[in-house]
Amino acid sequence: MSADFSPGGQMADRSVRPTRVLTGIGDDCAVLRLLPPRGQEQDTLVTTDFTLEGIHFRRDWHSAESVGHRCLARGLSDIAAMGGEPVAAFLSLALPRDLPQSWVGRFVRSLLGLAEKFGVTLAGGDTAESPDGILADIIVVGCVPRGKAVLRSGARPGDRIYVSGDLGGSAAAVWQMRRKPKRKLPREYPRHFYPEPRIELGRILREKGVASAMIDISDGLSTDLTHICEASGFGAEIESELIPRASVGKQAREVDLEFALHGGEDYELLFTAPARKRVPSRIAGVPITHIGHITRESKIFLMNRNQIGYELLPRGWEHFRR
Amino acid sequence: MSADFSPGGQMADRSVRPTRVLTGIGDDCAVLRLLPPRGQEQDTLVTTDFTLEGIHFRRDWHSAESVGHRCLARGLSDIAAMGGEPVAAFLSLALPRDLPQSWVGRFVRSLLGLAEKFGVTLAGGDTAESPDGILADIIVVGCVPRGKAVLRSGARPGDRIYVSGDLGGSAAAVWQMRRKPKRKLPREYPRHFYPEPRIELGRILREKGVASAMIDISDGLSTDLTHICEASGFGAEIESELIPRASVGKQAREVDLEFALHGGEDYELLFTAPARKRVPSRIAGVPITHIGHITRESKIFLMNRNQIGYELLPRGWEHFRR
Repeated sequence: MSADFSPGGQMADRSVRPTRVLTGIGDDCAVLRLLPPRGQEQDTLVTTDFTLEGIHFRRDWHSAESVGHRCLARGLSDIAAMGGEPVAAFLSLALPRDLPQSWVGRFVRSLLGLAEKFGVTLAGGDTAESPDGILADIIVVGCVPRGKAVLRSGARPGDRIYVSGDLGGSAAAVWQMRRKPKRKLPREYPRHFYPEPRIELGRILREKGVASAMIDISDGLSTDLTHICEASGFGAEIESELIPRASVGKQAREVDLEFALHGGEDYELLFTAPARKRVPSRIAGVPITHIGHITRESKIFLMNRNQIGYELLPRGWEHFRR
Repeated sequence: MSADFSPGGQMADRSVRPTRVLTGIGDDCAVLRLLPPRGQEQDTLVTTDFTLEGIHFRRDWHSAESVGHRCLARGLSDIAAMGGEPVAAFLSLALPRDLPQSWVGRFVRSLLGLAEKFGVTLAGGDTAESPDGILADIIVVGCVPRGKAVLRSGARPGDRIYVSGDLGGSAAAVWQMRRKPKRKLPREYPRHFYPEPRIELGRILREKGVASAMIDISDGLSTDLTHICEASGFGAEIESELIPRASVGKQAREVDLEFALHGGEDYELLFTAPARKRVPSRIAGVPITHIGHITRESKIFLMNRNQIGYELLPRGWEHFRR
């Protein structure tokens, strides 16, 4: 069950991906033909995510390109968290009357650029005038071999807990913007402005049968680990020393533990795997870190370097308030 | 190709409808198993529609129940216009902080009531705080036998043009509300407040191979007929005397022709059928009216009782402006 974790073998799948968008924008519905590869039935994945001005982004903080990228990345990340393949996206977009057309063009181009990178077709959506502010809702449809979607509910006591990449970088960017917005922030905090959905990693974890439960870190580690524990009916113990913290800013300084624990919108994958499964330290080019394990009791404990634990409570991600 | 147009035979299909929502609300994505019936491959339909306060409804005009019903009805009507079967719905809902919880409860109950009536599962969505006003985006996923979706582009010269039900009732309600809002309006103008998606009619037209092109009348007859003509590459001639006008208000008076021609949000079906096809005057309990035919040239003409025609231009549906 260990086998080849390199991305190369997986990518070959893409050339035979059997989905076609028969009718896209310009009819009452999009028509998708989700054909199973030979002998392999598919389930269909659907996710929807709002991107609202003043809640999920601020026009004085985020460029149109960043907003377009983040809008689609949110949906792609949900597909990644199921171990799925994204197929088509739908964008509902309501715009204020006075929004410059150039903003819309840059937003759409950036979104389409990310879509193309992942082989996703923008197949429809809705447009409307907005009563106030830019309102977007992205829908991503994906597929996964029948019965193989990696749910939040599959973690079992003894399973190890892993996280991809590093955490807290997105929250640190928000903190920095509140203090002193700077033009160079997108370069110094790329994970906030241009998050990378972990599609390939999610697919490999599902294909290799490694992950017993998985979620993407959109609300923060404390909240998203709580989601896995609640859905699975167990608890967890994680070690503060093991949590990979993002390095951000001009000096590439490690973020505070608080950001890594509670900061949202990193869009890394949090997953569990039975202890007997070999999990490499890097999959599809992304570092994988073992941060703890699932326990029988339902609480989550954070252990410090002296092995003294305190209960970790979910601290929901605070969005931008004007 | 005429055969049985009664709804009875069709309803039997539903008992073997092979779709299951494996994982609904509470994971990163919903997982749908869209299984084809024996020997019959399916295509997947997806539609998304905004329902925005101040644009698509006004809280002082529309009850929470009406908003919830109309929100889902918009999506179901798009599925009907493809001849499809609705399967699952996803609701993205952003609410202002000060919105009474009772409003939300009534909205959701009404939406779920309509969903249940059509065998649709609410399988996911997103929630957020709204920066201003109630913002909803409804996504409906449906299915249709492979290659059988009824597109807008299939109309051919000589095809007859038909419309279901009657038109202009919804626009007349808006006109009445602008003049003098009254509490009894929902009873006197049910088509505006509680539109009925024509799912069964759409399915029968598709199953019998009757409709060559189809669209739902959401933007008004003049605009939606233009959509069919443009997609098909032809024109049309319709007769003003034949257009079925809604009877509304306490006196059940026929609406003005202008409302029937240009008023949106009636959610009736507009379809074309080859002249050789028998089209009954009532299908699935809904009156069907022959209003004209498709022509070779690309313009649309409206003929009066003296057979004098003038060119009919699309006059887009004006939404509610505060």
